Amino acid sequence: MGMVGGGEGAFIGAVHRHAALLDGGIELVCGTFSADPDKSRRSGSALGLPQERVYGSYAEMMRVESAMDPSVRMQFVAIVTPNHLHYPVADCALEHGFHVLCDKPATLNLAEAIHLKERVAATRLQFGLTHTYLGYPLVQEARSRIAAGSLGAIRKVLVQYSQGWLAKPLEQTDNKQAKWRLDPAQAGLSSCMGDIGVHAFNLAEYISGLQVTQICADLTSFVDGRNLDDDGSVLLRFDNGAKGVLTASQVSVGEENGLAIQIYGDKAGLKWSQQEPNTLWFLPEGEPVQMLRTGGDYLSSTAGALTRTPMGHPEGYIEAFANLYKDFAAQVAAPSSGTPSICPGIEAGCRGMAFIELTVTSSQSDIKWHDLV
Amino acid sequence: MGMVGGGEGAFIGAVHRHAALLDGGIELVCGTFSADPDKSRRSGSALGLPQERVYGSYAEMMRVESAMDPSVRMQFVAIVTPNHLHYPVADCALEHGFHVLCDKPATLNLAEAIHLKERVAATRLQFGLTHTYLGYPLVQEARSRIAAGSLGAIRKVLVQYSQGWLAKPLEQTDNKQAKWRLDPAQAGLSSCMGDIGVHAFNLAEYISGLQVTQICADLTSFVDGRNLDDDGSVLLRFDNGAKGVLTASQVSVGEENGLAIQIYGDKAGLKWSQQEPNTLWFLPEGEPVQMLRTGGDYLSSTAGALTRTPMGHPEGYIEAFANLYKDFAAQVAAPSSGTPSICPGIEAGCRGMAFIELTVTSSQSDIKWHDLV
Amino acid sequence: MGMVGGGEGAFIGAVHRHAALLDGGIELVCGTFSADPDKSRRSGSALGLPQERVYGSYAEMMRVESAMDPSVRMQFVAIVTPNHLHYPVADCALEHGFHVLCDKPATLNLAEAIHLKERVAATRLQFGLTHTYLGYPLVQEARSRIAAGSLGAIRKVLVQYSQGWLAKPLEQTDNKQAKWRLDPAQAGLSSCMGDIGVHAFNLAEYISGLQVTQICADLTSFVDGRNLDDDGSVLLRFDNGAKGVLTASQVSVGEENGLAIQIYGDKAGLKWSQQEPNTLWFLPEGEPVQMLRTGGDYLSSTAGALTRTPMGHPEGYIEAFANLYKDFAAQVAAPSSGTPSICPGIEAGCRGMAFIELTVTSSQSDIKWHDLV
Amino acid sequence: MGMVGGGEGAFIGAVHRHAALLDGGIELVCGTFSADPDKSRRSGSALGLPQERVYGSYAEMMRVESAMDPSVRMQFVAIVTPNHLHYPVADCALEHGFHVLCDKPATLNLAEAIHLKERVAATRLQFGLTHTYLGYPLVQEARSRIAAGSLGAIRKVLVQYSQGWLAKPLEQTDNKQAKWRLDPAQAGLSSCMGDIGVHAFNLAEYISGLQVTQICADLTSFVDGRNLDDDGSVLLRFDNGAKGVLTASQVSVGEENGLAIQIYGDKAGLKWSQQEPNTLWFLPEGEPVQMLRTGGDYLSSTAGALTRTPMGHPEGYIEAFANLYKDFAAQVAAPSSGTPSICPGIEAGCRGMAFIELTVTSSQSDIKWHDLV
Repeated sequence: MGMVGGGEGAFIGAVHRHAALLDGGIELVCGTFSADPDKSRRSGSALGLPQERVYGSYAEMMRVESAMDPSVRMQFVAIVTPNHLHYPVADCALEHGFHVLCDKPATLNLAEAIHLKERVAATRLQFGLTHTYLGYPLVQEARSRIAAGSLGAIRKVLVQYSQGWLAKPLEQTDNKQAKWRLDPAQAGLSSCMGDIGVHAFNLAEYISGLQVTQICADLTSFVDGRNLDDDGSVLLRFDNGAKGVLTASQVSVGEENGLAIQIYGDKAGLKWSQQEPNTLWFLPEGEPVQMLRTGGDYLSSTAGALTRTPMGHPEGYIEAFANLYKDFAAQVAAPSSGTPSICPGIEAGCRGMAFIELTVTSSQSDIKWHDLV
Repeated sequence: MGMVGGGEGAFIGAVHRHAALLDGGIELVCGTFSADPDKSRRSGSALGLPQERVYGSYAEMMRVESAMDPSVRMQFVAIVTPNHLHYPVADCALEHGFHVLCDKPATLNLAEAIHLKERVAATRLQFGLTHTYLGYPLVQEARSRIAAGSLGAIRKVLVQYSQGWLAKPLEQTDNKQAKWRLDPAQAGLSSCMGDIGVHAFNLAEYISGLQVTQICADLTSFVDGRNLDDDGSVLLRFDNGAKGVLTASQVSVGEENGLAIQIYGDKAGLKWSQQEPNTLWFLPEGEPVQMLRTGGDYLSSTAGALTRTPMGHPEGYIEAFANLYKDFAAQVAAPSSGTPSICPGIEAGCRGMAFIELTVTSSQSDIKWHDLV
Repeated sequence: MGMVGGGEGAFIGAVHRHAALLDGGIELVCGTFSADPDKSRRSGSALGLPQERVYGSYAEMMRVESAMDPSVRMQFVAIVTPNHLHYPVADCALEHGFHVLCDKPATLNLAEAIHLKERVAATRLQFGLTHTYLGYPLVQEARSRIAAGSLGAIRKVLVQYSQGWLAKPLEQTDNKQAKWRLDPAQAGLSSCMGDIGVHAFNLAEYISGLQVTQICADLTSFVDGRNLDDDGSVLLRFDNGAKGVLTASQVSVGEENGLAIQIYGDKAGLKWSQQEPNTLWFLPEGEPVQMLRTGGDYLSSTAGALTRTPMGHPEGYIEAFANLYKDFAAQVAAPSSGTPSICPGIEAGCRGMAFIELTVTSSQSDIKWHDLV
Repeated sequence: MGMVGGGEGAFIGAVHRHAALLDGGIELVCGTFSADPDKSRRSGSALGLPQERVYGSYAEMMRVESAMDPSVRMQFVAIVTPNHLHYPVADCALEHGFHVLCDKPATLNLAEAIHLKERVAATRLQFGLTHTYLGYPLVQEARSRIAAGSLGAIRKVLVQYSQGWLAKPLEQTDNKQAKWRLDPAQAGLSSCMGDIGVHAFNLAEYISGLQVTQICADLTSFVDGRNLDDDGSVLLRFDNGAKGVLTASQVSVGEENGLAIQIYGDKAGLKWSQQEPNTLWFLPEGEPVQMLRTGGDYLSSTAGALTRTPMGHPEGYIEAFANLYKDFAAQVAAPSSGTPSICPGIEAGCRGMAFIELTVTSSQSDIKWHDLV
């Protein structure tokens, strides 16, 4: 694979590389690690890439790589830049015939996402979106159980994503991560909803198998000087009549990466929390709550296939990420295999962008409900 | 004390009695345990009361007891009936010169609560409202810390109250608890918000020291045939600019009595859960999360005074309830002592009723924000 | 009931009183609260007892009370003194025809316990021992499940009781609780094993339904100047071939009242911890771990009968204690009812004393295994 | 690197490979994956190795690889075979000039370990032992804190390692993992102590910085037909006077990989559990317990350097393993860098083997204490 973004000081780029490497079979062969050619070269060199495969621009990379022999050139490109570059890089990659694995959110705005969807459809190339949390075995188990009817008709979905790292104006320091996330030009319309709310939204729809049809949002920018929200809560209505709440925050002091979901149907409930990802609580009516564990023999085959070690050997964030990589690589290798994939695509990307934009619209509006279409 | 309600098959009446007895010093001397005189007598007899102190109606009880010698008659009355009787019984008790300790919500509707407030003011008698959860030592600790500024300016309040016992139409069986809670004539405008949402609301305002100024609610009646909500979520705005979410449910299968609160300020956060009431999580910025425990030497004197045993000897729901009883009895004994009381009064009762009614109004409205005044 | 001990500055006496009061039906009518008559009277007065029922010595109390009319005099005596008075007070009470409910350990040494056992047998009076933890509903559930064969043949029993309050030489301050527990004349041969190890031993035998047959102990006195152990660990062998470990400590800094037990059979395991007493973990082979909760419909009738509130309303230490009181009072009221009792008697007291003494013997010996008979 | 063992059906071999790959920089270049040459080749082929680098015997591999150009040949060998092959393979590797990274326990018996120690000393090559759990950041934090005196003088060490997977005679099925672990010829003198007890022992000495001087063990073989222990408990005495207990089990039904440690000093205590490896509980005297978390800014630099992602992104077993690999590779690259290493060496291997053998001796003996030298 090739990579765009992820140079010095980046966070998610390194995670992508760990994830790609973990299972063997995926090799980083080239990259454009920064818009600054010198920085890109330094980063590539630190990663052990030959100088000629480290590029000064993604356009150059696409052009040069696409001219190489298929046995040598990269097979897909991983995009790990700030949001505003997702679309142009993905578009360029698809144009040159490369599959794309892109960090979330899909694009800078919904319009771009819709264009990208069309482009993907036209090229028949693979487009994957790294909504990391879908890579956890027990997230798949949760989805499987609901799909199989174990919870009955879903009534309520509560999803929370609490972080505290932006409780102070970190973007006014030289923290690169904070800077771009709070810059509308790089991040888009939203910081909190765009960065983490969209993960929570994706998780809620993915696990429940439902679609959100209406929302009512209240976003806030708590830290002085910010142009984008750093906190928000959203009432949700789903297509089957279920109700829910999504709340996300970057200013919840003391919270780390607190993504957690609770779903209740008329037969059973379930709860999962990203910080203890190897436990899924299953609450059948009138019976003791069950603690389902990663690696348990009683799990679905989908969940089982995503586990590398026996029960009790904790698997974490990188393993979940690696599951998406493995899945995406398998799709690239055999696109028409018919195997259901766990890695979301551009449709999920469009829904996410629509959700982000609508939370901003809703938050500024006096009308209670806005339709998510 | 005397009691109205709490006869055979009742839940909260028995809890009130345990709470009253636990610390000694309060004695049940009379009661009207049911609207059915026979049932009232059977209940009183089972409780070891002499026949002449068990009454067939609360009006009779107030009349007869008030005519007794002060050294013999009840000193206050505990009201543990369904909601619709709170007001008439309290009103009658106050009229006859008795202090009142009443289960929540204060009354059947806001109008009654306002009348009651006037009556309490006029009589200068004590009126206490058993918002049980305020009796937990660590709830007091949470409030103290926020009042002392440990959390800084509060930004976000998340409160959840999830139960699952009404996930099926239990009110169509002979379950007395379910029946009255889902009967508008006895419960009022709301089941879920009136029974448990109001606890969550009270807890949020009490701990944070803030007042909710605007709400946006979405209530649902999930089980067929119900006239009242059995689930609801509410966006909250507070008087200092803080934001929040309150979500409550009686149909979250597998949940017991899941009241939990998270509050974040610009300096620290805290979390508390009723099902593990002896732990309060304190999240100071940039430092390890601290586990505060009931009985810890490091707690405030208010919290310390509410504990009966050393750290590690779990105190629970009845102890919390008993703390309200003890506090109320002390107020009755020395009403002008000036000691700050932990037992809420009729003002909290009015706010609760206003909240309940406004959630119903808001839920039926297309206007996004409704003011809570 | 009457009480011996439990005056000003005492801990367990107050707990006994809360426990006795909680459910109604038991009344404190007299007491000898201190060996110091003035202090006894002050304590009795603070408890609201009439002066003539507060005694200056237990001998006087037994004599005077036994001469009263049966309808007036105390029906049983609760002994809440330091260990060295358990035997003389109990003996005197039995001699005067009073049932006895005694704090643990039964006596100062095994010889006394054996004498007491004979006395109890001779008088046919009730003798109860407040091994508090047996009063928890889920401890009874654990025992029931093992008795019913749900765990299969028991193989391993791990029991831990960790406290930290004696990590410093608190007995050299005016802390009354610390002073007597570390004084051989008042505490007996052991501090840690005598005070808490014996609880752990009792719990292990009670839940497992097994008897310890051999032990190998290593006791330590970590704090300078102590004559008694403040920590110890014991290898256990049970009569069915099961193995185990008991470890107890009063110097485990930061621990509160950390009693926890794990038991594994060839079909299932279970775990329970006193600090979260409303959860019992049940580990069936090859299936998800189950979280059993106080108040669950799926519990045995024995466990169910010990609960006062619905699931999710935490019951704690005082409630567990109250369950023993209620049970003991029922035995006193109907000694030959045939109802199995949850309150341990003098047999458990003898086993406990034998265990304590043998841990001291074993610890001082080079022989590996000592028989517990 | 090259690998010996870890072919089809193996568990730990795959973990080693994930660990080696995760961070980039280590490449699997050759291997002998099974004693069966066909199986070895199939495994190597599945791993993408060229046929000529997959060997039919480890001896052949050492011979051929050592003859290659240094830029091409493997730089170290990872040994992931059953125990009985550790010594011959390591010996052969050292003889041919290869560094060795070996799975635990070091060898089949203590005598071999001592020989190996001499050989390592003589060759001045690197020998690493994959006691996985030392690779967790919070295990390093625990050690650092104790070394820095935060806990004061250590008094008590409790370590537990509970598994349940061998509760049934799995070795009588075709389960390869169970078969060799219960075969004395392949596993050595002990199953439970050799496989997991030794991890617990290593962890206790490593974190505490103390050495065990005396033990008293009771091992058991619970499942019929076994020649080796499947459970055991050991009283421990440390060189500074601290006491402890180690208990391990392969037959604790329902347990996964339950390694947990508690250490108490005279100033503070700490607790860590492998199944929730990203939390370390720190218990300072008289203050609230602190929850230390992987990635926290307040951790030591050692712990910090072992983390790949920000707080709240769980890292697990493979990451811990990868930390040992990374550390070992750095030692191989710069053996005399002087950087303290986290990967244990042959000294720890000798101590482990001495411990395993002494538990067996002690268990069969009537003498209480045996010296561990």
